[in-house]
Formats: sequence, C-alpha cells, structure tokens
Amino acid sequence: MKISDRIEAAMTTAIRQGQGGIAPAKLAAALDYAVTPGGARIRPTILMSVAMACGDDRPPLADAAAVALEVIHCASLVHDDLPCFDDADMRRGKPAVHRAFSEPLAVLTGDSLIVMGFQVLAAAAGHTPHRAIQLIDILGTRTGMPFGICAGQGWESESQIDLSAYHQAKTGALFIAATQMGAVAAGQEAEPWAELGARIGEAFQVADDLRDALCDEDVLGKPAGQDDLHGRPNAVASFGVQGAVQRFDDILGGAIASIPACPGEAALAQMVRAYADRLVPAGARRRSTVPGE
Amino acid sequence: MKISDRIEAAMTTAIRQGQGGIAPAKLAAALDYAVTPGGARIRPTILMSVAMACGDDRPPLADAAAVALEVIHCASLVHDDLPCFDDADMRRGKPAVHRAFSEPLAVLTGDSLIVMGFQVLAAAAGHTPHRAIQLIDILGTRTGMPFGICAGQGWESESQIDLSAYHQAKTGALFIAATQMGAVAAGQEAEPWAELGARIGEAFQVADDLRDALCDEDVLGKPAGQDDLHGRPNAVASFGVQGAVQRFDDILGGAIASIPACPGEAALAQMVRAYADRLVPAGARRRSTVPGE
Repeated sequence: MKISDRIEAAMTTAIRQGQGGIAPAKLAAALDYAVTPGGARIRPTILMSVAMACGDDRPPLADAAAVALEVIHCASLVHDDLPCFDDADMRRGKPAVHRAFSEPLAVLTGDSLIVMGFQVLAAAAGHTPHRAIQLIDILGTRTGMPFGICAGQGWESESQIDLSAYHQAKTGALFIAATQMGAVAAGQEAEPWAELGARIGEAFQVADDLRDALCDEDVLGKPAGQDDLHGRPNAVASFGVQGAVQRFDDILGGAIASIPACPGEAALAQMVRAYADRLVPAGARRRSTVPGE
Repeated sequence: MKISDRIEAAMTTAIRQGQGGIAPAKLAAALDYAVTPGGARIRPTILMSVAMACGDDRPPLADAAAVALEVIHCASLVHDDLPCFDDADMRRGKPAVHRAFSEPLAVLTGDSLIVMGFQVLAAAAGHTPHRAIQLIDILGTRTGMPFGICAGQGWESESQIDLSAYHQAKTGALFIAATQMGAVAAGQEAEPWAELGARIGEAFQVADDLRDALCDEDVLGKPAGQDDLHGRPNAVASFGVQGAVQRFDDILGGAIASIPACPGEAALAQMVRAYADRLVPAGARRRSTVPGE
C-alpha cells in the first residue's frame, strides 16, 4: 500500500473511533472537518518513511504513530487559527474550524485531537508496550511544555524571545517527533534520528517563509504575507529570496547527510529530496537561478 | 505521608518539569497558576484512596496517575473559563487564567496541561509499561471524544442533548477515571471500579447543584447561581433542596455498596463518606432535616 493510502486509512479509522456512537454530533463532525482534506501530510509521511527505512516490523504501531502525530498537528492548526491567535478565516482552502462551527467547538476540537493522539498510541501498544510508551513520551515532549509546539506558541507572548528555542519548538518539534517516532515504531533507538528531524524542520521553516513571501492566498489556502504583516522574523527578510533558497539547499544537504545507517537509507534520502523539491515555490528557484530577472 | 501531601509533592514535581529550563516564562508561570492553590483535589484523592485500598504496590505510578488526572481536570477548568465558554472572571478565588495572563496563554495552558497528563504517565511507566498504557487508555477515554469531558462540553453546543450521555461525560468521566486509574496503578482490573466512580460523579453533580443554588460567590470562589442563570438542568430545580439532599444520600449509599472486595475496603468506604459530607453545604442539610424552617 502507498504511504499516503496507509496514512489516510489510519486517519479515517481513528476519527471514526473518536466520533463514536452516542456523541455530540457537531463536535464529532468538527473532528473530521479539522483533519480532512489533509494537505501534504508531510509529518506522518516522514514518520512512515523512516519506519520503513528501519524495517517497519510493526506496521500497526507505525500507523498509530503517524495518526498520533498528524492529529496533534491538526489540533495545533485549529487552535492557532482561533481569534485570540491568528484569527484566521481560512485554512487549507476552506473556512477555519471556528468559522465553520464555532469558537467553543474549535477549542474542543483541538483538545479532543490532542487527546486522540495519545489514545491511538495506547490502543496500538499490543505486545510492545515499551515502544508505545516511548512513542507517547516523544509525542508529549514535542507537543507540550517546555520543548514542544505549545512552548513554541508560548514564546510569541514573550517580549524577549529566545529565537533558537522558539524555532526549535514551534516548527522543529513535530519534525523531530516524526523521525524519532518512525524509528521507535520500528524498534530502533530515537536519539540518532533527532538531527534529521531538526534539519527537516529548519528547511521547512525556510520553505514556509518563501511561500509566505511569494505565494498568494489561492495557492496557500490561507492568507499570504502574514510574517511581514505581524513583523515575524523570517528567512526571506533576513537573506532575500536567493539567500533563502541557498540556505534551504544547505540545510537539506545536512539533513540527508545526517540519516543514520539503516536498511532503507538510500530510499529515504531520495524521499526527503523529492519532498523538499515540492516545498519550495517554483518562483523562488526561477528567481534564484536567474539573478538578473 | 498524608494523601494530600503526596498529591501536592507530585504536582509540584510535574509542574517544575513542565516549566523546564529555557521555556517561555509567562506560559511556564501560567502552568503553576492554573493548578495552585489546588482546591479539594477530590479526583486525585479518590484515585490515591482506591490505589491504597488495592495495596498501592507501585506508589510512583499512583502518584503519576493522580497528577495526570488532576492536571487534565485543571486544563478543563482553564478552557471552560474562556470567554467563548463560561467567560468566568474568577476561579478558586482568584482571577481566571485568561484574566490573569491572556486568552492565548489560557488556551496554551490548557493544551500543555492536557499533554502533561499523558507525559507524566509515560515517564512513570518503568517496569510496568502495561499498567501505564492502561492508565493512558483510561485517561484518554475519559478526557476525549466520544465519552470524555471534551464530549461533555461538546453536548452543550447541541440543540438536542442526550442528558444521560451528557452528565456521564461532563461530570462522571473523571470520577470513573479516578477509581479505575487508582485500581490499575495498583495492579488491579479497571472494570469492577467503574460503578463507584460513576456514582461518586452523580453524587458530586447533585452536591454541585446544591452549592450553586445555596452558596454565595465568596464560598464558591466563582459566580453562584450559574445553573439558574444559564437554564441548565440541575437537581435542586428538579427535586427541591430536600429532595436533592435525599438523592445525594441515596447515590452515596449505592456508591459505597459498589466498592469491590479489596484489602482496604472499609477504610475506603469511610473516606468516601467523610469526603461526601464536606461536599454538601451545611445549609442544605439543616434545611432538609428541619422541614418547617
């Protein structure tokens, strides 16, 4: 089965479970709404790719880990879009959850999806509870305080920001979770996989900055130019378009070089490169290779 | 060590861990603010009492379970107080988190505390990962969708409410988690302990209705008369004060009768009764025993 099909099948099963039999209908509908259509599913795709590179000897656990990571990511989008944060009307080309349902339901959708992340891992523990516990530990660390995406958002309420801690927590955290959880789901050590995740996170941040600066709302499925608007630090403002693309390529090279020795090392490197190519907007590379343009 | 001291010590350790070294200072402060001072800590106290009645052979796991349950409860209070839900200014006699910090920080505080609940359980797994997985499973079920406190809140957005499902999820869920998690932390089966939790939850709901109807804001530490104000179903409106007290006593009797055979059965029954006495406002019992008053 293709990775993307595995992810979607596992997501559908998890959401159906969360919707249950006798449950509040609107919140049940909002759970599904918040995770579909899925966008690139980049984090679970990386997770699955690492699991497969490591032998994927417990596919149900890898599936659960992929779902856990993605629902937590979706939860963060739902809460980030709330009026008290980004006040975003649109997400992935359709109204944000708080617009389509309501603000209370958006808060609860995020809460329920966070919980679901841990539920699916516990449910998939089976005969390898040690692996499941480790997956829950990694997911918790990269989601909560002091190192996870909650901390990343929290930094935005500070007047003095530790930029490195901010970026690592805000964007890097779930990519580190992706590579480490993929390895652990397949019975490997987490630690050697941290650097790959961290570097992919950095590359992703630069690509996001490029897209925010160069793409319009139709392509993004959300408002463009937000970094500029909110005065947020970003790679395009710091290095220009060409410099940012160069930086992206450098980080990507480092990411691939950091892949630990494993049976599927070559295929994984290829996947990371192919995925990365899709992240950088075409316009950026055209501009950067034809400097006079 | 007294149960209350064990709980506070374990809570302090968990919150310090969550605050970490390099972390956003306001969010770190809000985590502590949201869980202290702790109110009655009724859910972790029940959990600990059940664990001790069952032999408490892994105290660090019982401590972790108590913390996990209490931080999830505190998270729900922080989110329930948000402007889009109860819009409460005060909680436990001091400004609600969104008033003392900000709305974004209140959302993140709740999110971080939810995650912390699962983190502390994973961290305490040690040599009994099966127990930790079961604890995570129970906590997830009683927090998320379709049966947990998220579902309970979700029902309030429906025009047609399944009252039994609503009460079970909104108030009962974390009491069922309390008794089941206490048993599981001590190596016992979860299932026989569900009824005790459910009945304590029902009794608590009735006591809460009595307090809401009879106490003033100073005693409650939050606005009184909220049920009446929001037209919410409650036992005092349905049965009167005397009827509600009678109902409370009946449910309590059922709760105690449901306690499974275990080494500390008698002590547990005594604890439940003593705790329950503190829940019913003195005025209610005076009124109900002197009908002419």
